Amino acid sequence: MTYRVGIINVTGYAGLEAARLLWNHPHAKLVAATGRSLAGQRLGDAFPSLGIYGDFPITETIDQDVDVVFSSLPTAESAKACAPFVRAGVRVIDIAADFRLKAPGAFEQWIGGGQPHPAPDLLAEAVYGLPELNRDAIASARLVANPGCYPATAILALAPAVRAGIIGEPIVVDAKSGISGAGRGGGAGFGYSEVNEDVSAYKIANHNHQPEIAQELGNLRGGVPLRVSFVPHLVPMTRGIHATCYAPLTREVSQDEVRALYRDFYAGAPFTRVSDTPPHTKHTLGTNICIVHPVVDARNGLLVVAGVLDNLGKGAAGQAIENMNLMLGLDQAAGLNLPAVYP
Amino acid sequence: MTYRVGIINVTGYAGLEAARLLWNHPHAKLVAATGRSLAGQRLGDAFPSLGIYGDFPITETIDQDVDVVFSSLPTAESAKACAPFVRAGVRVIDIAADFRLKAPGAFEQWIGGGQPHPAPDLLAEAVYGLPELNRDAIASARLVANPGCYPATAILALAPAVRAGIIGEPIVVDAKSGISGAGRGGGAGFGYSEVNEDVSAYKIANHNHQPEIAQELGNLRGGVPLRVSFVPHLVPMTRGIHATCYAPLTREVSQDEVRALYRDFYAGAPFTRVSDTPPHTKHTLGTNICIVHPVVDARNGLLVVAGVLDNLGKGAAGQAIENMNLMLGLDQAAGLNLPAVYP
Amino acid sequence: MTYRVGIINVTGYAGLEAARLLWNHPHAKLVAATGRSLAGQRLGDAFPSLGIYGDFPITETIDQDVDVVFSSLPTAESAKACAPFVRAGVRVIDIAADFRLKAPGAFEQWIGGGQPHPAPDLLAEAVYGLPELNRDAIASARLVANPGCYPATAILALAPAVRAGIIGEPIVVDAKSGISGAGRGGGAGFGYSEVNEDVSAYKIANHNHQPEIAQELGNLRGGVPLRVSFVPHLVPMTRGIHATCYAPLTREVSQDEVRALYRDFYAGAPFTRVSDTPPHTKHTLGTNICIVHPVVDARNGLLVVAGVLDNLGKGAAGQAIENMNLMLGLDQAAGLNLPAVYP
Amino acid sequence: MTYRVGIINVTGYAGLEAARLLWNHPHAKLVAATGRSLAGQRLGDAFPSLGIYGDFPITETIDQDVDVVFSSLPTAESAKACAPFVRAGVRVIDIAADFRLKAPGAFEQWIGGGQPHPAPDLLAEAVYGLPELNRDAIASARLVANPGCYPATAILALAPAVRAGIIGEPIVVDAKSGISGAGRGGGAGFGYSEVNEDVSAYKIANHNHQPEIAQELGNLRGGVPLRVSFVPHLVPMTRGIHATCYAPLTREVSQDEVRALYRDFYAGAPFTRVSDTPPHTKHTLGTNICIVHPVVDARNGLLVVAGVLDNLGKGAAGQAIENMNLMLGLDQAAGLNLPAVYP
Repeated sequence: MTYRVGIINVTGYAGLEAARLLWNHPHAKLVAATGRSLAGQRLGDAFPSLGIYGDFPITETIDQDVDVVFSSLPTAESAKACAPFVRAGVRVIDIAADFRLKAPGAFEQWIGGGQPHPAPDLLAEAVYGLPELNRDAIASARLVANPGCYPATAILALAPAVRAGIIGEPIVVDAKSGISGAGRGGGAGFGYSEVNEDVSAYKIANHNHQPEIAQELGNLRGGVPLRVSFVPHLVPMTRGIHATCYAPLTREVSQDEVRALYRDFYAGAPFTRVSDTPPHTKHTLGTNICIVHPVVDARNGLLVVAGVLDNLGKGAAGQAIENMNLMLGLDQAAGLNLPAVYP
Repeated sequence: MTYRVGIINVTGYAGLEAARLLWNHPHAKLVAATGRSLAGQRLGDAFPSLGIYGDFPITETIDQDVDVVFSSLPTAESAKACAPFVRAGVRVIDIAADFRLKAPGAFEQWIGGGQPHPAPDLLAEAVYGLPELNRDAIASARLVANPGCYPATAILALAPAVRAGIIGEPIVVDAKSGISGAGRGGGAGFGYSEVNEDVSAYKIANHNHQPEIAQELGNLRGGVPLRVSFVPHLVPMTRGIHATCYAPLTREVSQDEVRALYRDFYAGAPFTRVSDTPPHTKHTLGTNICIVHPVVDARNGLLVVAGVLDNLGKGAAGQAIENMNLMLGLDQAAGLNLPAVYP
Repeated sequence: MTYRVGIINVTGYAGLEAARLLWNHPHAKLVAATGRSLAGQRLGDAFPSLGIYGDFPITETIDQDVDVVFSSLPTAESAKACAPFVRAGVRVIDIAADFRLKAPGAFEQWIGGGQPHPAPDLLAEAVYGLPELNRDAIASARLVANPGCYPATAILALAPAVRAGIIGEPIVVDAKSGISGAGRGGGAGFGYSEVNEDVSAYKIANHNHQPEIAQELGNLRGGVPLRVSFVPHLVPMTRGIHATCYAPLTREVSQDEVRALYRDFYAGAPFTRVSDTPPHTKHTLGTNICIVHPVVDARNGLLVVAGVLDNLGKGAAGQAIENMNLMLGLDQAAGLNLPAVYP
Repeated sequence: MTYRVGIINVTGYAGLEAARLLWNHPHAKLVAATGRSLAGQRLGDAFPSLGIYGDFPITETIDQDVDVVFSSLPTAESAKACAPFVRAGVRVIDIAADFRLKAPGAFEQWIGGGQPHPAPDLLAEAVYGLPELNRDAIASARLVANPGCYPATAILALAPAVRAGIIGEPIVVDAKSGISGAGRGGGAGFGYSEVNEDVSAYKIANHNHQPEIAQELGNLRGGVPLRVSFVPHLVPMTRGIHATCYAPLTREVSQDEVRALYRDFYAGAPFTRVSDTPPHTKHTLGTNICIVHPVVDARNGLLVVAGVLDNLGKGAAGQAIENMNLMLGLDQAAGLNLPAVYP
């Protein structure tokens, strides 16, 4: 059986990556892909990296019967586009941020620019799509909120320690991202000559991924959001996120104990690995892999955890396909069983 | 049926890329991979991008029965390692330059540092592994000389025009390569801080890929090597080759005629595309695709052709697997049916 | 004595580079700098790299008395802005292309989008600002047309050979440019994720720098434009141009003869060096230096010349200041006596 | 008066940058520069970026009378080379780490590989060369320990807050560095294809710059080293350091109060600026500038400070020249009055 997939806004980087990964999926097939300014063009003409798709067209709307829809519309536009599909019984994975924040008022404050959520009932129902935490709930969900790229990295880096109760607050998440996180549109600030040979922070302790990290880590420990100070940085590369997380230890632990605890936590997870050496973003390029590396800084009573992933893979489209696999009862790793592109 | 593959010197970039591509091959499987300094380590530990290989070991020698061997040893070391496998009836694809140059003395002069070829009988027998030119000969070969990354680009850019007799000599091939072409060892001259933000030429009109281009283009036109001026350049990116080729037109031709001529020539080729716009190296990243774009410069009586590919894909390991597929009677595109990684 | 300088459109990359270089000029001082969208801001706030300028404002018009004006307005806007200053007796250096092409109709065809030149009398009078060719004419000019970045590289690479009559036609100029050549505005096609890890050609044999190269080389040999096939490429770096030029030799010459001929030609030029090894763009970063390296390809009867410079230095703002020095009777190298920034 | 300067190991990146900056120094002149493998070559031949130096030779030893010596030898080799010059009355600035750590045993543990310091009397006397903290002591010193590139960034980012007592411990310093920090030798791990498109941490909480930061911040508050968790990261650019520092606030402070406190602290410092927006490493390229940007994260009770500089400028050679200026009684900014190279 082959499931039929539609992508809303295939022309963003996450949409394009979903199309790339679906090409070799054994049980799912892209049948419709929308784009606004490029509607009417062939997908492979507009994006020669997908030339293998031949005559496949970019359309204005999903004009085929579909079993699953991915939306990679910009944040605050996506919920409206997703809702009709959910209500029509199509499984939906929203790659945007619209269904992630559950606290009353959080959407208005962080995502919607002051506007209320357009589908509060669906917001309540949406499952946060990180299989390492919510595997069963995802499998039975109609609507999955795909994690943000920064939160995916930070949560996977910290979840075992939070669950085990060995770290307290506040937690510092210092994240470094490739420029593709800014999207295909980008804008003048993301021109090559501006961001090449440059590192800078932005939205210091004020990015909308901060409450997402806080909420999900809190759900591992009684439901109260954890206090998190999140600072994202842009670094001159195209893909990849490196999150370095610092948290106060609540008790003395050895490096061996922490390593064992992390390995246990991820024993059944096909895509998150625990490494004994500092991980490189490059080792995840083009895949759905996340690598985490916890280090006890005994001198300072801190746990330091480095986590890496491909922001368009486990941080977006790869994760979306993993979620789709679970929702459809397929092998969790179907279509994602890929070595990284190196060098 | 699954064929068993060995890689000699998996620890070079071409060897690693072959291992990456073989992971998802439907009819071939890596069973042995050698490396010198890293023998004894697990492949996925030494190269975390291949972590998916689990316990697979790097060994000193090919210690398993194999149907096919790839060699990605350095040039001038490879022939010796390949010969015993050929003689034992194993199909061999040499990714190094050792079996490419056929003219008497050419190996000594360009490849062997003054030493004669260690297996002249095999040199005579070896088939130049560019399926767009030699599909049938490859299918029945015991030993294939996989093309160099620069020659693959230049020959695919020029072959239709040479075959049609619309261009003369001398031909200028101005090539721009990513740094991975220098190999994993690299050396001080390829340190990040040295080659980043830099373009430079090297071995101007004196690189050993020049006679390879001349020989193969000559084989399309009576066997006399064409006169080619080849200048390679390093540009600050990891993968990709862009060859810009300039040749005097022998008669007036229109852009439409040239385009049609190119499309005809590559009509049956699964991996070489003719584009109506200037191609980007990035649109071939991680694939076995080559894109060529011929332009008539009527003002100057020249044909200008831009050709691009991934130096580790169609320029090395992808090409090697395409050759293996042909030698084994498999679908030419098996395991290579991949969209490019973009952005 | 300190001369007073104004920059029209300081907010483009060439304008900013002129401001950077003027800061340490011993005899000239920036007193006014215009910008449209940023008028009213402090230069150092809008561009923190120029923070050293303190309270210096960006204005809408040149609101100070000035002795010299640089214009780095976009091509086809610049001539109109320059004309009043020339007529008022201010020395003007136009960094745009508006005063470069002298042939009747050339401006309309290549620069003006079909519109006639707004000041044909000044076009006739303007001196092409390459001191290696036109030192004396520049010194007595009221209006200098600063060379384009590509033409500056190609002309300096080829001039000695053209003047000596050792090369014929057609000449191939294959140029590789950093992305800053596209300007600060850039646009979506120049976003980091698009051009990083990519090489592509554009405007193949159809760029408006082609007639500029042809015209100036022709002026070295009787005034008839030479036939030039010019193909520019974008490479993933911020600054730098590498032009590789190929021309048919008209007679046999030795490498030594060519080297001597080039050294003689540039004996009195403070900024153009002849190198015995392939030059690197990086070795000119931030300077007004050009390095050329001629190679005889005897096998093919070609002269191959590699030339490099910083597109914002000798290719734009550095060259403009060198021209200003000559026009004002100052030391030709005043303010430009700088080692390159390396690595 | 022109002071005569020697550089020991000019062939490292810090040594080369010192030579670059000295070229335009109004009161100091490079008269001797050593290098081991390159001794006998002309400086401008070995390093064409310094071609402006003409015939200046690289020698085996400082063979001229000098007033000042910079050493950019590798750590643990430098002290031995510096000592004789200090004892001979030459002012010495050690760019290596050999004279920085004052605590008994610290050199053995962190720098010397178990060996004791070769000149403990000079270690005691050496002044830590950060003028923002130690201006007067530097002015009267015979021997200055030039700060490490990471510590310079972190200390300048944190010093005003530590001095004011508004932050406690532990302090997290998450630093991102360009690859030139690894030196010109580099090694296989710093090959372009390895570190391009990659971010990774190294020596997590175990780098020898950690005790240096702890010591100097401690000196601002009673002399007890502060507890600092320092994690350095490599990012794919050549130059630049971005340190993001996180420290617990000891009391409630407003953003305005912190900003004022920082501006006061750096009121007399010619090279350290306080910015109201997140700083970019690129805005310091080629200069001796440091930019710091403190942010109150009231939600988490943290002070977050971003600091940037050029690791070869204020992080090495620029700082060394600033120290020299103070030691010689010159204008503190002599030769360093430079806008940044942008873009």
